[in-house]
Amino acid sequence: MLPSVIICLHDGDYGTGIAFLISIGVAIAVGGILALLGKSAGLRFQAREGLVCVGLSWIVLSLVGCLPFYLSREIPSFVDALFEIVSGFTTTGASILTEIESHSRGFLYWRSFSHWLGGMGVLVFILAVSRTGQKRQGFTMHILRAESPGPNVSKLVPKMKETARILYIIYIVLTVLDVIFLLAGGMPLFDAVCTAFGTAGTGGFGIKNDSIAGYSPYLQNVCTVFMLLFGVNFSCYYLLLLKEVKSVFKDEELRLYLGIVFGSIALITWNIYGMYESLGETVRHAAFQVSSIVTTTGFATTDFDLWPTFSKAILVCLMFCGACAGSTGGGIKVSRVLLLWKILKRNIRQVLQPRKVMVVRTNGQMVDEKILANTNAYLAAYVIIIVFSFLLVTLDGFSVTTCFTAVVACFNNIGPGLEMVGPTGNFAMFGGLSKIVLILDMLAGRLEIFPILILFTRSAWKKM
Amino acid sequence: MLPSVIICLHDGDYGTGIAFLISIGVAIAVGGILALLGKSAGLRFQAREGLVCVGLSWIVLSLVGCLPFYLSREIPSFVDALFEIVSGFTTTGASILTEIESHSRGFLYWRSFSHWLGGMGVLVFILAVSRTGQKRQGFTMHILRAESPGPNVSKLVPKMKETARILYIIYIVLTVLDVIFLLAGGMPLFDAVCTAFGTAGTGGFGIKNDSIAGYSPYLQNVCTVFMLLFGVNFSCYYLLLLKEVKSVFKDEELRLYLGIVFGSIALITWNIYGMYESLGETVRHAAFQVSSIVTTTGFATTDFDLWPTFSKAILVCLMFCGACAGSTGGGIKVSRVLLLWKILKRNIRQVLQPRKVMVVRTNGQMVDEKILANTNAYLAAYVIIIVFSFLLVTLDGFSVTTCFTAVVACFNNIGPGLEMVGPTGNFAMFGGLSKIVLILDMLAGRLEIFPILILFTRSAWKKM
Repeated sequence: MLPSVIICLHDGDYGTGIAFLISIGVAIAVGGILALLGKSAGLRFQAREGLVCVGLSWIVLSLVGCLPFYLSREIPSFVDALFEIVSGFTTTGASILTEIESHSRGFLYWRSFSHWLGGMGVLVFILAVSRTGQKRQGFTMHILRAESPGPNVSKLVPKMKETARILYIIYIVLTVLDVIFLLAGGMPLFDAVCTAFGTAGTGGFGIKNDSIAGYSPYLQNVCTVFMLLFGVNFSCYYLLLLKEVKSVFKDEELRLYLGIVFGSIALITWNIYGMYESLGETVRHAAFQVSSIVTTTGFATTDFDLWPTFSKAILVCLMFCGACAGSTGGGIKVSRVLLLWKILKRNIRQVLQPRKVMVVRTNGQMVDEKILANTNAYLAAYVIIIVFSFLLVTLDGFSVTTCFTAVVACFNNIGPGLEMVGPTGNFAMFGGLSKIVLILDMLAGRLEIFPILILFTRSAWKKM
Repeated sequence: MLPSVIICLHDGDYGTGIAFLISIGVAIAVGGILALLGKSAGLRFQAREGLVCVGLSWIVLSLVGCLPFYLSREIPSFVDALFEIVSGFTTTGASILTEIESHSRGFLYWRSFSHWLGGMGVLVFILAVSRTGQKRQGFTMHILRAESPGPNVSKLVPKMKETARILYIIYIVLTVLDVIFLLAGGMPLFDAVCTAFGTAGTGGFGIKNDSIAGYSPYLQNVCTVFMLLFGVNFSCYYLLLLKEVKSVFKDEELRLYLGIVFGSIALITWNIYGMYESLGETVRHAAFQVSSIVTTTGFATTDFDLWPTFSKAILVCLMFCGACAGSTGGGIKVSRVLLLWKILKRNIRQVLQPRKVMVVRTNGQMVDEKILANTNAYLAAYVIIIVFSFLLVTLDGFSVTTCFTAVVACFNNIGPGLEMVGPTGNFAMFGGLSKIVLILDMLAGRLEIFPILILFTRSAWKKM
């Protein structure tokens, strides 16, 4: 929060600056108390503890993180402030603000920075920079596993702490590159940094009312490319650094991801052709929106709610699919879609040849049955959560499409949906209950369901 | 088709009567040729052959079954005629007719009778009445397994053929009871028989433009009760006949089914209270629509598209859920929903205690891991089919809600969706491609995906 304090002092927004200072104080106090409590706790730390720890940490983090919004009165309602910061940390980008440009720059900086922090994982960040976990390999692994997106965590190097550090270095380098390319296109520094935060975390908070639409085509294309880059599994970049180019381009997930992206761009370009002045402009808008939705960023350069139903349907499907595992994107993840497809194929073959033992492979390697079982359970939990959230949100009485895409956009950490929550809309009109449901959806989506879901089970709280 | 011929002759609709006679001729010819071809085929008949046989039979059945509609020119387009009969056999009840009452009674009789035939299974019917399969237990079992709805077939008695016969006797007795109750309320015989066919098969074709809305409250309530009865697993009735009342009421699927039904009625009654004149009328409409949707029948007494979003959302969720396994209803089936829930619960517990071996039980009995794997694959296939169908149907450019609920209503064999395909709408406006997609969805939905899906795989056609 310190940069925000400095920006506020520089801009003369003293009220907001003081709100940030108070929040810093609260953060230190809460952290201190938890650290003291933690010292007296037992040492047993396994999968369950990892999940509970991550789930609770994100809730505490959000409660503290929303304080500057609330205390500065820039967002007068506490639930709204909480919604906004959860939307930030979970890299959703759904906003309750009807007007953005009137807010102070310190406020906007913290809002965009929350994307960057949440994208790669707040606890992973702490693990990467702190000395904790130097000795406690199990602790680091369970935290990393619970917080990182995707069906399994790829260990880049034997030491988990080293892995976290490498991931963050790649993340920082890519973000800096993004800023440089944006600056080269004439974007002001503050805009460039905030936009890069939103892109890197695949979050989607903009600092303009029209998101990215007002920037030049060059800047929009830079965003398109970087959104796609941040949707790739970061271990691919690590392999590239090791010059293992071949194994990167043989990666099934990456291939499917690129196939989905370019296939969708082609189909949408064909479908919306004629709505824009030139083919170039059509491709630019199609590519931007596809990249924005598939990586669950949520930036917009045009109101895709006005597109024909087929294009909208493709975007809705992309909302579910999401980006690669091990990236900063949300959604079901391409690797899970791939696994579900392979599980289905195996099952059909199994029906035809009941006695043959069949395994599922990705990139030539056998996938552990435990991961397959988890993937199935993930899909079931995913469907159940969407159904219940949808039912609760419809109590507010908005249209079926609005309510459904609001839930989908929050749960998959995208941001905009269709109709009232479309690219030109926002989430302000929902009632308190709906906002709380959507807050939980965002958290569950970012943490891949289980860290939040088990907080609601009895066994998570039982002594073992 | 013979009763239709008789009705046509009695009513003087000679054109339609001749169409039925020609169709009977074609049916005999096709059947004869296939029987001759079958004699020279090998005897190996296992799961694969059962699935392919059922899938292809239903396609041939539909192609022949739609001939009377097309030849009589009562439905001038062949695709429309095919859509209508597939909608009949699969007990969907989605119609391309914009006006029903002007059609001949012979036509309407065949349309409603297709529901009755498809409800319990056409091949099961043939197995029950023919002498085939007397000795070939394996053949009968694989056909029954492929055609009957639900995650597994409950063998009532050791002999499969006997099981098929018992099911059909229960089915006939319940249908006759339904007719008697309808006649007691003053409904004309023809109406009563056709309505009973639609109810028994949980189909939903009515013979009036306003579906069931024009009949008296008593008749509507009779429909409500019988729709719910036909949504119950038929093995429950067999157990009742054996006086095993206790085990029926301990059945977890039945309990969940009743819980869902009464819970939904209560919530909708609360939500729509004030839209109708009295509490009694409100409950009647809520109960009718809930029963109609959860059993995937699709009759309507009121335009639920005008209800508040929360009530519509409940109905959409019920569309997915469907009725009990082993009933004539469609959808995912309550027992599968139950299994998915239990699989999810096990998985969460498994994460918390990775070393413990955990099994899933229903009604106190361990569920085979193969059935669990099949249930998971079913859900994956289900989602994938909905996504692709939805994308193809949106090419026609109707609204997201119209396209999505059209696919869901066809795939789950319900009939009406929302907006343009709502209770007062129909499917006439869709283009040829969309209709073919929806036809395949209806078939896949009725046959629980795999018999249709494997027709598109190479291994289904390979010699083994």
